[in-house]
Amino acid sequence: MNYDMALDTALNRLHDEGRYRTFIDIERRRGSYPNAIWHKPDGTEQEITVWCGNDYLGMGQNPKVLAAMHEALESTGAGSGGTRNISGTTIYHKMLEAELADLHGKEAALVFGSAYIANDATLSTLPALFPGLVIVSDSMNHASMIQGIRRAGCEKHIFKHNDMDDLRRILQSIEKGRPVLIAFESVYSMDGDIGPLSEICDLAEEFGALTYIDEVHAVGMYGPRGGGVSERDGIAHRIDIINGTLAKAYGVMGGYIAASAKMCDAVRSYASGFIFTTSMAPAIAAGAVASVRHLKEDGSLREAQQTNARILKMRLRAAGLPFVDHGTHIVPVFVGNPVHCKLVSDMLLERFSIYAQPINYPTVPRGTERLRFTPSPVHSSAQIDALVQAMEALWAHCALNRAEESA
Amino acid sequence: MNYDMALDTALNRLHDEGRYRTFIDIERRRGSYPNAIWHKPDGTEQEITVWCGNDYLGMGQNPKVLAAMHEALESTGAGSGGTRNISGTTIYHKMLEAELADLHGKEAALVFGSAYIANDATLSTLPALFPGLVIVSDSMNHASMIQGIRRAGCEKHIFKHNDMDDLRRILQSIEKGRPVLIAFESVYSMDGDIGPLSEICDLAEEFGALTYIDEVHAVGMYGPRGGGVSERDGIAHRIDIINGTLAKAYGVMGGYIAASAKMCDAVRSYASGFIFTTSMAPAIAAGAVASVRHLKEDGSLREAQQTNARILKMRLRAAGLPFVDHGTHIVPVFVGNPVHCKLVSDMLLERFSIYAQPINYPTVPRGTERLRFTPSPVHSSAQIDALVQAMEALWAHCALNRAEESA
Repeated sequence: MNYDMALDTALNRLHDEGRYRTFIDIERRRGSYPNAIWHKPDGTEQEITVWCGNDYLGMGQNPKVLAAMHEALESTGAGSGGTRNISGTTIYHKMLEAELADLHGKEAALVFGSAYIANDATLSTLPALFPGLVIVSDSMNHASMIQGIRRAGCEKHIFKHNDMDDLRRILQSIEKGRPVLIAFESVYSMDGDIGPLSEICDLAEEFGALTYIDEVHAVGMYGPRGGGVSERDGIAHRIDIINGTLAKAYGVMGGYIAASAKMCDAVRSYASGFIFTTSMAPAIAAGAVASVRHLKEDGSLREAQQTNARILKMRLRAAGLPFVDHGTHIVPVFVGNPVHCKLVSDMLLERFSIYAQPINYPTVPRGTERLRFTPSPVHSSAQIDALVQAMEALWAHCALNRAEESA
Repeated sequence: MNYDMALDTALNRLHDEGRYRTFIDIERRRGSYPNAIWHKPDGTEQEITVWCGNDYLGMGQNPKVLAAMHEALESTGAGSGGTRNISGTTIYHKMLEAELADLHGKEAALVFGSAYIANDATLSTLPALFPGLVIVSDSMNHASMIQGIRRAGCEKHIFKHNDMDDLRRILQSIEKGRPVLIAFESVYSMDGDIGPLSEICDLAEEFGALTYIDEVHAVGMYGPRGGGVSERDGIAHRIDIINGTLAKAYGVMGGYIAASAKMCDAVRSYASGFIFTTSMAPAIAAGAVASVRHLKEDGSLREAQQTNARILKMRLRAAGLPFVDHGTHIVPVFVGNPVHCKLVSDMLLERFSIYAQPINYPTVPRGTERLRFTPSPVHSSAQIDALVQAMEALWAHCALNRAEESA
């Protein structure tokens, strides 16, 4: 067996398809984000503007967040030193979970190392709690939900993305009396469209199903206190389990679920991915608490984000560039080919100092390769100008398809 | 379907078996660890000594580590703001990976949110890289390895813990020419015994198998530079993939693998748990770099830890308490019943201000419930005295089995 050759084969497959990923090394400087320094492979540096980040509101440099982290480091030290059960539950973890439960109007919350693990660990554990569980999952759900559902090993059905007729058809086909869970997202990360949450809840009630929502691309950014689309639409109380992240709009790291006290207690007690891992560093928890609190009280960053998103889309539309607009803060411009997508991204970076990573398969379906811009309150008008001008120049240069694909 | 009743059933099962876990809320104060404050459910506080933590060397309060974290927060901010591929690769991540590759004498390293994910994501990805892979796994491997191997979905065999005859028998039974991976640990966390690494490598060479080692309870603590038992035994070059943690001896958070450049490149490119999750906070990476560097250069904490472990075991032996001694820093004292185990732990905490969480199923096999003490360089002679005296008093009080189970 030649292991080295097998690795070559696996890697060449990616090179051949033009979807080998090259990580760009960047250095953010506190206070000047979205500007950052690109550390090039040849050892030189170039100042760039980050246009593809998920620190959606710039909270990663918010003084309150940083002060809370410094303070926790100073008062308690670096790591927690244990799993949640074995010496790793600190007052910082308790504070954060209380803050998140309150954010979503739930009795309790559970913090995980990431929202990926929160999805994976929770979804894979539910069949142990509800024997005979059937999971019904939106076809565009995130990789972490797919992993969790796969690992759950229970009966599962996929409904067409946001298609309520298909969801109803599937729910009708499931034997009465069996436990059912509907799993979906609010803002879908790569297209920026929003699920029909209220209609899903209606169907869940009609068929007696549990509801599970991934709000990672919405928490902090939607709803009067940043409780996500479920808060904005006034239906958080109709959702059984809300999954969110502390690593995007909140600008720190980590993920969580919020749910009833009993549900959290059961997941806490049965989920391998919760039990057998060191709890998050207290300073991370402290920073997240400060960030969640800030965005509960202050809606100005949310407003500024939406304004900048509207401006960028208006400008891209005027320039005739092919993007979709679902009314959210995520602006995907389609290229439709992994090699071209990387090429456009490379040119944006090298010639225009604009950083937007190419988004290729498996993150998005083949043929829908794209650049995904994430306008934020920290992007200036001049930076929006520069982006649109660069895209216009590149599109002309590359003779790329200008067909408007806007929804 | 009554979901609430199902949750009650799941939770009552744990209560009935006496293995419902109650998290103890603690507050470490920087500089005074292993002392900490126990925040009791009734709102009062009690000063305690932590005897079950995995901040094995007290690096969570090391000034260099904390300075590096403060500095990174100050210069770059809180979160990374993206997955590794999409704006989340920073100079801190690159520095950490270079440091870890050097620690293990490998070409490369990949950092994950935790060692749990590093195991899970890597092991589950390997069959995609080596089609037809057979994984041969030690029966006592950690939950995260078991999860990864299960999810791998490939042919697997379990060999009896540390049993080289059984491993040979299994390797012989596998069709020649198929790719094979042997997965094992160095220091097993709950018994503190060490795998026969060199013999496993011999068998791997004989049968042309890859080797995968989990060194989370050894890195930082064994080997002249803290490279783990594989460094101590001079066999790191014979191991294909080394898994380690930054959350135990290094006192921070996160996990990693170290391997050939090609192996890391392939795992990086194919592992869902690496691709689809926000990269670790830069300050965490910076703290880990400082910690790894410190323990590469300075062996004094390693020596002090071993000295304290020897003293504690000598004292427990003199007191006739039932523990096993495998020559490592982990000291498990057996109780053998989940209810008694929790009772002893509660009494230690309440009456003696000594915190050692009961370790019950599923962390250890039923019937082997235990208290697991982790003596460290930061435990004083007086604290060791207090622990042994408390255990003697409790053992007498509870008329627990004094039969020596030492190996």
